[in-house]
Amino acid sequence: MSDVRVGIVGVGVMGADHAERVVRKTSGARLVAVSDADQARAEELADRLPETQGVGSAARHAGGSSYGDGIRVVEDPLDLIAADDVDAVILASPGFAHAEQLFACLEHGKPVLCEKPLTMDAASALRVVEAEHKVGRQLIQVGFMRRFDPEYAALKQLLDSGDLGRTLLLHNVHRNRSVPPSFRSEMIVRDSMVHEVDVARWLFGEEITRITVYTPKPTSLVAAGAFDPQLAVFELASGAMADVEVFVNFQVGYEVRCEAVAERGSATIGLGSGVFTRAGEHWGGAMPADFRVRFEQAYDLEVQRWIDATARGEIDGPSAWDGYAAAAVCEAGIESLSSGKPVDVALADRSKVLG
Amino acid sequence: MSDVRVGIVGVGVMGADHAERVVRKTSGARLVAVSDADQARAEELADRLPETQGVGSAARHAGGSSYGDGIRVVEDPLDLIAADDVDAVILASPGFAHAEQLFACLEHGKPVLCEKPLTMDAASALRVVEAEHKVGRQLIQVGFMRRFDPEYAALKQLLDSGDLGRTLLLHNVHRNRSVPPSFRSEMIVRDSMVHEVDVARWLFGEEITRITVYTPKPTSLVAAGAFDPQLAVFELASGAMADVEVFVNFQVGYEVRCEAVAERGSATIGLGSGVFTRAGEHWGGAMPADFRVRFEQAYDLEVQRWIDATARGEIDGPSAWDGYAAAAVCEAGIESLSSGKPVDVALADRSKVLG
Amino acid sequence: MSDVRVGIVGVGVMGADHAERVVRKTSGARLVAVSDADQARAEELADRLPETQGVGSAARHAGGSSYGDGIRVVEDPLDLIAADDVDAVILASPGFAHAEQLFACLEHGKPVLCEKPLTMDAASALRVVEAEHKVGRQLIQVGFMRRFDPEYAALKQLLDSGDLGRTLLLHNVHRNRSVPPSFRSEMIVRDSMVHEVDVARWLFGEEITRITVYTPKPTSLVAAGAFDPQLAVFELASGAMADVEVFVNFQVGYEVRCEAVAERGSATIGLGSGVFTRAGEHWGGAMPADFRVRFEQAYDLEVQRWIDATARGEIDGPSAWDGYAAAAVCEAGIESLSSGKPVDVALADRSKVLG
Amino acid sequence: MSDVRVGIVGVGVMGADHAERVVRKTSGARLVAVSDADQARAEELADRLPETQGVGSAARHAGGSSYGDGIRVVEDPLDLIAADDVDAVILASPGFAHAEQLFACLEHGKPVLCEKPLTMDAASALRVVEAEHKVGRQLIQVGFMRRFDPEYAALKQLLDSGDLGRTLLLHNVHRNRSVPPSFRSEMIVRDSMVHEVDVARWLFGEEITRITVYTPKPTSLVAAGAFDPQLAVFELASGAMADVEVFVNFQVGYEVRCEAVAERGSATIGLGSGVFTRAGEHWGGAMPADFRVRFEQAYDLEVQRWIDATARGEIDGPSAWDGYAAAAVCEAGIESLSSGKPVDVALADRSKVLG
Repeated sequence: MSDVRVGIVGVGVMGADHAERVVRKTSGARLVAVSDADQARAEELADRLPETQGVGSAARHAGGSSYGDGIRVVEDPLDLIAADDVDAVILASPGFAHAEQLFACLEHGKPVLCEKPLTMDAASALRVVEAEHKVGRQLIQVGFMRRFDPEYAALKQLLDSGDLGRTLLLHNVHRNRSVPPSFRSEMIVRDSMVHEVDVARWLFGEEITRITVYTPKPTSLVAAGAFDPQLAVFELASGAMADVEVFVNFQVGYEVRCEAVAERGSATIGLGSGVFTRAGEHWGGAMPADFRVRFEQAYDLEVQRWIDATARGEIDGPSAWDGYAAAAVCEAGIESLSSGKPVDVALADRSKVLG
Repeated sequence: MSDVRVGIVGVGVMGADHAERVVRKTSGARLVAVSDADQARAEELADRLPETQGVGSAARHAGGSSYGDGIRVVEDPLDLIAADDVDAVILASPGFAHAEQLFACLEHGKPVLCEKPLTMDAASALRVVEAEHKVGRQLIQVGFMRRFDPEYAALKQLLDSGDLGRTLLLHNVHRNRSVPPSFRSEMIVRDSMVHEVDVARWLFGEEITRITVYTPKPTSLVAAGAFDPQLAVFELASGAMADVEVFVNFQVGYEVRCEAVAERGSATIGLGSGVFTRAGEHWGGAMPADFRVRFEQAYDLEVQRWIDATARGEIDGPSAWDGYAAAAVCEAGIESLSSGKPVDVALADRSKVLG
Repeated sequence: MSDVRVGIVGVGVMGADHAERVVRKTSGARLVAVSDADQARAEELADRLPETQGVGSAARHAGGSSYGDGIRVVEDPLDLIAADDVDAVILASPGFAHAEQLFACLEHGKPVLCEKPLTMDAASALRVVEAEHKVGRQLIQVGFMRRFDPEYAALKQLLDSGDLGRTLLLHNVHRNRSVPPSFRSEMIVRDSMVHEVDVARWLFGEEITRITVYTPKPTSLVAAGAFDPQLAVFELASGAMADVEVFVNFQVGYEVRCEAVAERGSATIGLGSGVFTRAGEHWGGAMPADFRVRFEQAYDLEVQRWIDATARGEIDGPSAWDGYAAAAVCEAGIESLSSGKPVDVALADRSKVLG
Repeated sequence: MSDVRVGIVGVGVMGADHAERVVRKTSGARLVAVSDADQARAEELADRLPETQGVGSAARHAGGSSYGDGIRVVEDPLDLIAADDVDAVILASPGFAHAEQLFACLEHGKPVLCEKPLTMDAASALRVVEAEHKVGRQLIQVGFMRRFDPEYAALKQLLDSGDLGRTLLLHNVHRNRSVPPSFRSEMIVRDSMVHEVDVARWLFGEEITRITVYTPKPTSLVAAGAFDPQLAVFELASGAMADVEVFVNFQVGYEVRCEAVAERGSATIGLGSGVFTRAGEHWGGAMPADFRVRFEQAYDLEVQRWIDATARGEIDGPSAWDGYAAAAVCEAGIESLSSGKPVDVALADRSKVLG
């Protein structure tokens, strides 16, 4: 057996997403167990996933395969963490449950991907850090997934390259279409602004030493007493700064932007067009060098979907006829290229060929 | 055994890319065999791949696993196609070899993803179509990967939705930074414009019936006698049309754009910002609804890289300290939120905590 | 007397716009007379303008000033052209009236800014060119105002700089929100595409020698029998080319774009920006409603520069020859529109006509 | 006499620009006199301008016209202000000279367009406001020309329309390519940030009550001790807020952006566009070199509208109060710059001052 066997604790929105991800998109991984306070939800997920996951599904139900037992539902999350057939754990449980579950992961030496927050307060988070340190190797990764976003990664790379000189300032914007009325003002800091905290620490590569949170007059579209939007200023150890708008009832949609201002230019991501720079007297971005850069995701999806369809005994993409028809048009095109005249495309009668 | 066992014929640039893709990114697939006219190149790939593919590598070399034998190098591509342990084939061999290899795939009932062109001319392509038809089920998919590009897929979905009315015209642009001098004018049609042919057929859902290829005065940056750029006009069965610029020595970079003009607006992709529409008196695009739409790729990469690092016994992302530091900043932020004043962040001394 | 005293023939939409422009925005010019087939419309304009034009108004009514008599309404446009107190003429009358009025301007030696078309057909336009040539100095400027649009001017400057190498191709798009049902297919060529004809001639600095007008299946939002959109291909003397979409019932708004493709890059104008909003689930901006919004600045600059050049006794814009050449291309375009075939442009020999 | 006869005090960069503007582009205005501490510079300008201004030039030299005497050079600016043939004054002299010259304009009842700053401090600015109030009619307009920029005007219109709900926040960015080493940190507040002060007051329609100026670690491209960039937070009377980056040694070019965040969306101006190129491996456009390129149209409209309003005996732009209020905010900003703390803005009671 070679795949990493994953167990997921908490299969709400985020955990169920991760479950799909592990099953359908992740190479070298296998989901073997799930656990949730809502047992029915866990059962439903475990039942649903194999039915739709293509080859795995067919094979799993064929019996005798290494997937023979499907995805187990484990009642107690600590049992899941301790289980011999679980190599690594994703924690997508509520934040208040993280501390205990993280300690369990450390105890059993299980690598764990823990959705943020690590724990509910700094004191308990520090105890986790200390406990991991005693284990002697890093087992805990926190789910600050922006570091993996291709745009953020490209921004980090650009800033670290030094091409723009030292980074001086960040302007961050973080907007949600809306949140439930239960989303209190402190949660804007703890659940939304926390991403900007990590982004600032990561991009600057140093700690934040001071924070000011301003509360502009709130939008009228929230309950009285709530502070939304908020405007924060972060001051970092070296004197660099960041300002951050968090606005969780923006109505329009989800928007995350980050502009880094450096000594010789600025770079913005979150506009939907890669890294947008203002540098060297120009604004704009870089052209992809070739088709593999531009269409990498297309190739990935093509092959993943072809594998999935193959496992089902189907075709899920352009057919042989499509290849033939393209060839017929190109032949006519080459004739037109030399004659300079319009050329009719001589295509076989599809209904006769394919019956 | 549950994964689809893939064999790849041809491991030049494209085939090697697909090999990496199957090994590192594709869920439910396993690369078991490769073949190439350049045997050394195939050997090199087979040697290289397992060494770097994380968990799979470790497990594969542990012996006794189903991956035990690694990636076989098969001298004769027809033997690879016929092999019992090859469930499906990727053809990335030169176009002139496709016909024979496709017939072999059909004979052995093997699903095949065939890089374009299907074959070298329309007549042989038609024979392939007929042969597959006789087999009685579709086995061949052609590598028009643009259909899987998220932007093209979104464009297709928008046009098919009817929101913009019937599609009337396409304006396509296809530019490469440069091609080798050996890339002749006919190859611009057969290897580059062919993608636009497929895009036009696919987006309109009908056949191209006439083509005119114009040859503007060529760029001075190609050898005398070559026609680059080219400007083509496609006429489709219903009377819809497309114009296409192909310019393979554009110098700047790789650029593929498609603007569809419909009765109530236009939609453009290839600008790097999703589907850009002009509709309802506005230009622009759609805001992502939520973080899962915006950061889907980030989550996918986070989990894939976490799995890969876990298999190596490492952490490759934000650490427990990062989780702790973020919590400490947020606590200070919440204090500032209520006091309206700057708050210093009380962070433990990292060197003391982590030794 | 120091200001150029302007008379305007035709005060419909375009002429009334010019009247406002001369009165309110143009330095060194004064509107002294207007004429229109609809006398009431001319009276209304003459009455209205001075009341609102600030200082001029106050002074005009103070008596004894050089503006003492306000704006005269002249019944016969030929009388206006002949009037001693009219230094220069703007022709915004219907196209069929242009020939006679232009000949009158030439006879009286009056500089004239003539809205396009110069005349209704190439033959009469050529006679105007010849008549002006006999006068011995250039008096006629044609209203191809795009040459004065800051974006087009910057594009021209960039292409002429040679920074991008030789220009190879233009991709032009010309869209109106809608036109009245009376706007026939030939008018799309003569009244809309004519601007693209001038743009292509001007940017390339050479004549168009062949035109093909394609008629894709029309939008269902026009009356049966009308061809909208149209797709034209222009071939220029040196072998350069342009493709042009004209779509006069685009529904969305007014849009004019031009992308020039050169040996080392491309340059596009007409993408607009202005206020960029994120609202209503979209990001983007507003399309201009019509050409007056989009090209207001171009019209202002056209008239200011025409006034300045007139004062110096010069022409500083598209000439009568430009008006004639555009007419000749459009005639060929209309022939291609009905035949569906490429049509060579029959242009007089410029060196023979202009000596 | 019908044109407004303008005198300009100070013909350095800005004053010379205005002189050209009045002579060549402004309808209903005539430049009759200039004054400058550097008499030679004033002479040079007076000599140069008529030679190149087209019709005016020809007529002026023809003798007998009202332009017969050209542009006078007046040694003492107070004589220029007092002159009978000067209807209105543009003050482009150094800021320290403004107070005396403004009092002279008020004394002689001359409408005046005063480049910012109104005066050098809030106290003297308030005395100007009070003196004008005693005159009994508004004569002073301050040169906050951004209010006339078509993009800012469109933004103001959009926000005032209420379509996006109430405005909550502004994010402003103000960057210059570079400034001379003599440009001290306080000048960043007084000469650059002052524009953002006016923009915030104008867009929100209310006063700024508190300002905090943060000093991130400076760019290494300025002399030690200088604070560049600066980050300011404005708090307005109703609780609305603005954050402002001013960075006067940005290296790249001139950039002024403003994003208004409202209850139902955001709107941004200053993104520019113009010619969009794909060249040199990049897509994008050019940054404007300086404020005159970016705001040329704003200056043109400011002066044209000031002339039109002057002819009507009115003010149509930022008032003396606007100049005073901006000065008061900047004074508080300079205090915050040195203390690093929020500073309340001490503004006179408008209703008491203006009755």
